[in-house]
Amino acid sequence: MTAARSSSSIFLLLAVFVFAASCDAPPNPTATPPADQPTWALALHGGAGAIPRDSSPSLQRAHRESLSEALDRGRAMLASGAESLDVVEAVIRQFEDDPLFNAGRGAVYTHDGRHELDAAVMRGEDLGCGAVAALRTVRHPITLARRVMERTRHVLLVGEGAEAFADEMGVERVAPNFFDTPARRRQWLDYLATEPQTGDADRDKSTVGVVALDIHGHLAAGTSTGGLTGKRFGRVGDVPLIGAGTYADDRSCAVSCTGVGEEFIRHNVAYAISARMLLTGADVRQAARTLIREVLDPDVGGVIAVGRDGTLALEFNTQGMYRGAADSKGRFEVGIWEEGP
Amino acid sequence: MTAARSSSSIFLLLAVFVFAASCDAPPNPTATPPADQPTWALALHGGAGAIPRDSSPSLQRAHRESLSEALDRGRAMLASGAESLDVVEAVIRQFEDDPLFNAGRGAVYTHDGRHELDAAVMRGEDLGCGAVAALRTVRHPITLARRVMERTRHVLLVGEGAEAFADEMGVERVAPNFFDTPARRRQWLDYLATEPQTGDADRDKSTVGVVALDIHGHLAAGTSTGGLTGKRFGRVGDVPLIGAGTYADDRSCAVSCTGVGEEFIRHNVAYAISARMLLTGADVRQAARTLIREVLDPDVGGVIAVGRDGTLALEFNTQGMYRGAADSKGRFEVGIWEEGP
Repeated sequence: MTAARSSSSIFLLLAVFVFAASCDAPPNPTATPPADQPTWALALHGGAGAIPRDSSPSLQRAHRESLSEALDRGRAMLASGAESLDVVEAVIRQFEDDPLFNAGRGAVYTHDGRHELDAAVMRGEDLGCGAVAALRTVRHPITLARRVMERTRHVLLVGEGAEAFADEMGVERVAPNFFDTPARRRQWLDYLATEPQTGDADRDKSTVGVVALDIHGHLAAGTSTGGLTGKRFGRVGDVPLIGAGTYADDRSCAVSCTGVGEEFIRHNVAYAISARMLLTGADVRQAARTLIREVLDPDVGGVIAVGRDGTLALEFNTQGMYRGAADSKGRFEVGIWEEGP
Repeated sequence: MTAARSSSSIFLLLAVFVFAASCDAPPNPTATPPADQPTWALALHGGAGAIPRDSSPSLQRAHRESLSEALDRGRAMLASGAESLDVVEAVIRQFEDDPLFNAGRGAVYTHDGRHELDAAVMRGEDLGCGAVAALRTVRHPITLARRVMERTRHVLLVGEGAEAFADEMGVERVAPNFFDTPARRRQWLDYLATEPQTGDADRDKSTVGVVALDIHGHLAAGTSTGGLTGKRFGRVGDVPLIGAGTYADDRSCAVSCTGVGEEFIRHNVAYAISARMLLTGADVRQAARTLIREVLDPDVGGVIAVGRDGTLALEFNTQGMYRGAADSKGRFEVGIWEEGP
């Protein structure tokens, strides 16, 4: 007990030092990770998909700023000794309140003009996991997913039942139109005008996800989404399915996925990256790369992952992926297209 | 085309011969599979859990008869050249109409006295998969899961949305009380009298599942369940989660799981068996055994699996698992406890 406490104190001191050091380190997009391991590491994504390089500069800037703010929030927490699970939840809550991303406020519209939100969270220490799907009134789906993990024997709660559970847990509920935003409404109207004929409503992929290694050596992963514009029939994608869109195991890695959910389900991408590390000895970058470049079809999405050694992997096979990466060695980068981290 | 047709004919003739031969073969619980591969193989389960050896002999007999009838149905279809996917659906539909099992009619009651049904199906040829969850009015959830696979770009539909999709597909819906049975009602009343205090409502595990290899070399898997007696909050277990309770890949195996769903989700058991075969070269029995005996905690459930070579694995770490196994070499066995197949 005393030994554990004093080793925590050492970590904390170390973290405070590293944080102080990293605050001065300028972002360096071409840095290669140092040979010695980082004590903490963090990656996040805000969705992968067709992101034109000539898209509105102000929108690009807004995304980069949001990603930087989220990354900075997570960096500060991890550097001061926060647990990875708390960081994953806090950063995703920030994304859920940010109308730029397809999670919480800013979620896309379903076929009939509503919002149905899904989220999942997992901690690597004991494979604890929780998920929620088809929520219409819960402001922070990621927090409800965490309550499922911590306060029930279950993993996945859906629909009205999940919302009744939110009430029982005192998790904030809001009016369904809380999630409305003008930009998503326009996307929905565009969809209604064109998509139902083509059946191709796969274009909004700004799902959010966070993976973290904390200074205590624990991994966590979380993902939150509004799914597809124009989705029907209670469609649930990969996000709330543990092993498909989200997975964490302290023995291997933590993973969050984004893209065409059905492909991530079919190939159990998040779990597959962990399994490949454990069964073949691949490192997290090799494992993530194999899944994204060899197993999945082109142009379906991306993953972020952090290995138990703090190595970060950010892989995508789409035009772009909104993403960020930071670690205790001073790495702090956000990116959209290939040249990023 | 002609070559394919004539090889199908040869397979068909062979299958008819083997079927005729196997009809006379008595069940032989100690038979070891022959060295040469079966041309088709089939395994099914009707749930794993605490099944007392001194339970009512008439109930034991009823289960054995139901398992035998289901196995015979699947055997006849496979031997006459049916596709594995059709066999999986047909046998599970039979289970769903059988009040003995916790799927379709005979499903357990939720906390508030309703039924919420889940199912999934997957074909190994192209990793096509479909699943449904939290259904209240669909007579054959497995058929709706197949429609999701074949008629949408999605994998998982839940709740009222899934039922609206059933209407669009012409899949039979019934009044919610169609699923009521006196035996499950008694279990629910027992639960109401005792379980809410102890929080232990894990005892009804008679989920059903089928895996098959057909003479065309294709694998398929399906699972259907009513979940847990007394479940609340729209709880969804492992059954409709591709990779947790159900998986099929022609390169490795087809798997269906039963037991404490949350443990099967946490370890992605169905997919993990396939991954272990592909990444380590384990055969289907080794892979299934490792998951059930080493990865999972004791007393959580069981799996059935068929490898691409027709090898069958039926593993459980509970007191018993209702199960059956048959193949083109004349194997035809049903079992409940350890001494079975």
